[in-house]
Amino acid sequence: MSSHAQALELIADDLQRVDAKMQATGEVFAPLSGAINLLLDSGGKRLRPALALLISRLYPAAQREHVVSLAAAVEMLHSATLVHDDVIDGSLLRRGNPTLNASWSQGATILAGDFVFARAAYFAAETDSIRVMKIFSQTLMTIVEGELRQLYAIRQWSQPKDAYYQRIYGKTAALFAAATEASAVLGAAPEEEITLLREYGYNVGMAFQIMDDILDFVGDARTVGKPVGGDLRQGTVTLPVFHYLQSHPEALQVMQASGNGHASGVALGELIADIARSPAIDATRQEAIQFIAGARACLDAWPPSRYRQALLDLADYVVVRSL
Amino acid sequence: MSSHAQALELIADDLQRVDAKMQATGEVFAPLSGAINLLLDSGGKRLRPALALLISRLYPAAQREHVVSLAAAVEMLHSATLVHDDVIDGSLLRRGNPTLNASWSQGATILAGDFVFARAAYFAAETDSIRVMKIFSQTLMTIVEGELRQLYAIRQWSQPKDAYYQRIYGKTAALFAAATEASAVLGAAPEEEITLLREYGYNVGMAFQIMDDILDFVGDARTVGKPVGGDLRQGTVTLPVFHYLQSHPEALQVMQASGNGHASGVALGELIADIARSPAIDATRQEAIQFIAGARACLDAWPPSRYRQALLDLADYVVVRSL
Repeated sequence: MSSHAQALELIADDLQRVDAKMQATGEVFAPLSGAINLLLDSGGKRLRPALALLISRLYPAAQREHVVSLAAAVEMLHSATLVHDDVIDGSLLRRGNPTLNASWSQGATILAGDFVFARAAYFAAETDSIRVMKIFSQTLMTIVEGELRQLYAIRQWSQPKDAYYQRIYGKTAALFAAATEASAVLGAAPEEEITLLREYGYNVGMAFQIMDDILDFVGDARTVGKPVGGDLRQGTVTLPVFHYLQSHPEALQVMQASGNGHASGVALGELIADIARSPAIDATRQEAIQFIAGARACLDAWPPSRYRQALLDLADYVVVRSL
Repeated sequence: MSSHAQALELIADDLQRVDAKMQATGEVFAPLSGAINLLLDSGGKRLRPALALLISRLYPAAQREHVVSLAAAVEMLHSATLVHDDVIDGSLLRRGNPTLNASWSQGATILAGDFVFARAAYFAAETDSIRVMKIFSQTLMTIVEGELRQLYAIRQWSQPKDAYYQRIYGKTAALFAAATEASAVLGAAPEEEITLLREYGYNVGMAFQIMDDILDFVGDARTVGKPVGGDLRQGTVTLPVFHYLQSHPEALQVMQASGNGHASGVALGELIADIARSPAIDATRQEAIQFIAGARACLDAWPPSRYRQALLDLADYVVVRSL
């Protein structure tokens, strides 16, 4: 058994409770249940709830029921953002062709996303912690702001690298940080430990998104579930592109031309393939590894335990997954 | 000064604080501020926050800061649903003002709605009451479920009247009821008073939506901000239609034909004009008046005071507005 699987095994019962809680959402309104189950089956790695659940094991004061609610809230919030992302991406592809059929299902999809948001907020309230509710709603604002920033940054080919880190914080790391911070809060951890655990989650989240951005270039299209180079094709500049541009400034012209619709798909496809083969990928991966080193260092303050070990293993898993 | 204006005057200072809180939302992310201000200027009647603020004046225990947060949460939640509604039905105008949808891309509009949801949740958390948070998130689920039901009921011309009441509860009355219930909770009201005040809000909300559905037929298109008969044109059956069908069962064919695209716009336009001139409007209005009588009765338990009087006046206002 891989150390990643072993880490999840430690909290398998709680993860199952989280799943059951999420699935019950579909039962609230029958037409939703198919949509919700589809969403949950597409599943993903349950990494966010796993981190929250593992951290709670460091604190005897944590009430299991509250932590399960928190983990479900975090994963539902993540799911809701995915639902709306899909509508937003879809609307770009379908632009100019609004059919009655398309707008109908689109409306239902927007509302399904809203319902999942509502359910996430309800789970967060079930933690019976006002502080967790505030972390939760603050994080929702940060996530949406991050997505708006990403939308506004589309086809801005020359942008400061800082803007990239800010975007992936909003898009991904903020929720990881919220999950680990809120779990520590529910465990009645001392403030300095809450800060360290938030930092741990932040670092894991940053590494996770950087790896996602690498996989967009080098991943198997079937595994990743979207075409290779999709980010660049949509006009989103990610970390591998920043690294590639340092040694290939001329690539900017291909990107700009693609934005104006002047470049052939072939030119952009070649650029994407070239980035995937270039040292930019490894340079990017080194940054992810650094974030993971940062995450591990946050746990130095804790004595060895299997839960601490599991948190270290999950952090390591983030930079090796699917590669 | 009308009794409606007098009622609002009693809480003018708090309403201003609510507005300031809502406007500050735009400052969080610059590109949003124009959008948020557009949303807030289109304004509406601030009826939901006004009810919450007035009820809090019945209870010395209510902390003003918490009640202002609640009122802002309720109005922001209402605004967020309007933003997504506009995307879903593709409307470019609301109350005669351009919607976000008209000036922003669809994706940005969906995200702006999400941001307003997030902000509403944050304001709700600022009440420092877990019970209010639960009312709030439960209500958000009810509202979204109501909108999904409405979407699924489109062009179902023969449906039980109960389905109509269930829909308008979800669409409108649930939030009115939540606003008044949550305000009583913040005032540390006894349980039986919380129940009565929730009931008061429920009745006002039901009457409000029924009057809205009447205005869709008889209102001035410029005041209402959308074309007359818009609900029926979109395939939504409202209370005036139920009453009209009782004495004009043959109208069902015109409606069915319009759904199939077989009826001319003229036939549907004539039907709409005929409904507007028919006794169905007054029969519908009688139902709204009954809900208002129910709302007034809920306040019987309180001794006369200017706040109780204001709550009675606002209830009455709901059935006379814009007519």
